[in-house]
Amino acid sequence: MIKVKEAATSLAKTIEQSNEFIVLKEAYETVMQDEPSRQLFNKFRNSQRELYEKQMQGEQITPELAQEIEEIVKEIQQSEQIANLLNAEEVLHNHIGEISNIITEPLERLYGQIK
Amino acid sequence: MIKVKEAATSLAKTIEQSNEFIVLKEAYETVMQDEPSRQLFNKFRNSQRELYEKQMQGEQITPELAQEIEEIVKEIQQSEQIANLLNAEEVLHNHIGEISNIITEPLERLYGQIK
Repeated sequence: MIKVKEAATSLAKTIEQSNEFIVLKEAYETVMQDEPSRQLFNKFRNSQRELYEKQMQGEQITPELAQEIEEIVKEIQQSEQIANLLNAEEVLHNHIGEISNIITEPLERLYGQIK
Repeated sequence: MIKVKEAATSLAKTIEQSNEFIVLKEAYETVMQDEPSRQLFNKFRNSQRELYEKQMQGEQITPELAQEIEEIVKEIQQSEQIANLLNAEEVLHNHIGEISNIITEPLERLYGQIK
């Protein structure tokens, strides 16, 4: 398992040094250093979390929450800084998905071989 | 991103060569090569999947399904081969969790640094 952890640490380093991560880091820091953007981004994240938790608990989404989210999304769409951050998050998220597929490939192969 | 994919491929190889994976592979193949064990294991997996899907859809678990699962679990507990496989799966699952923590550490650090 030591070799596995070394390989994982080495992978984490290549992720951190990748263009996609650097772009995300810059986009995140740009938003965090501008107080109105920071507040709007946090409001957006909190509303997403609330929505997700309600869905997980099978609760109904109230019209108030739906409207609140709609308004936050409208505000978000007018902020180039936040749009950049969300794009950068999506790019990295997709890459992490690809990485995850590569890593779990031996398991997929094992469980796929005998049906 | 090429370097990242290379590092991920190399990590996948170290996982495949790890003791934990080899133990799982042997346990899985032992179960799959014994027809009654294979059938029981598949029945167990299918009942787990059914349970999971019902929970995700917020459906009630019928007493019939609950009893069916209870009976399968009783059968499972009498099979040393399947117990070995479930243990090996759990060990590898925990290690994949640790690996995942290592890989997402740069992201955790980025999102944790400015609150």
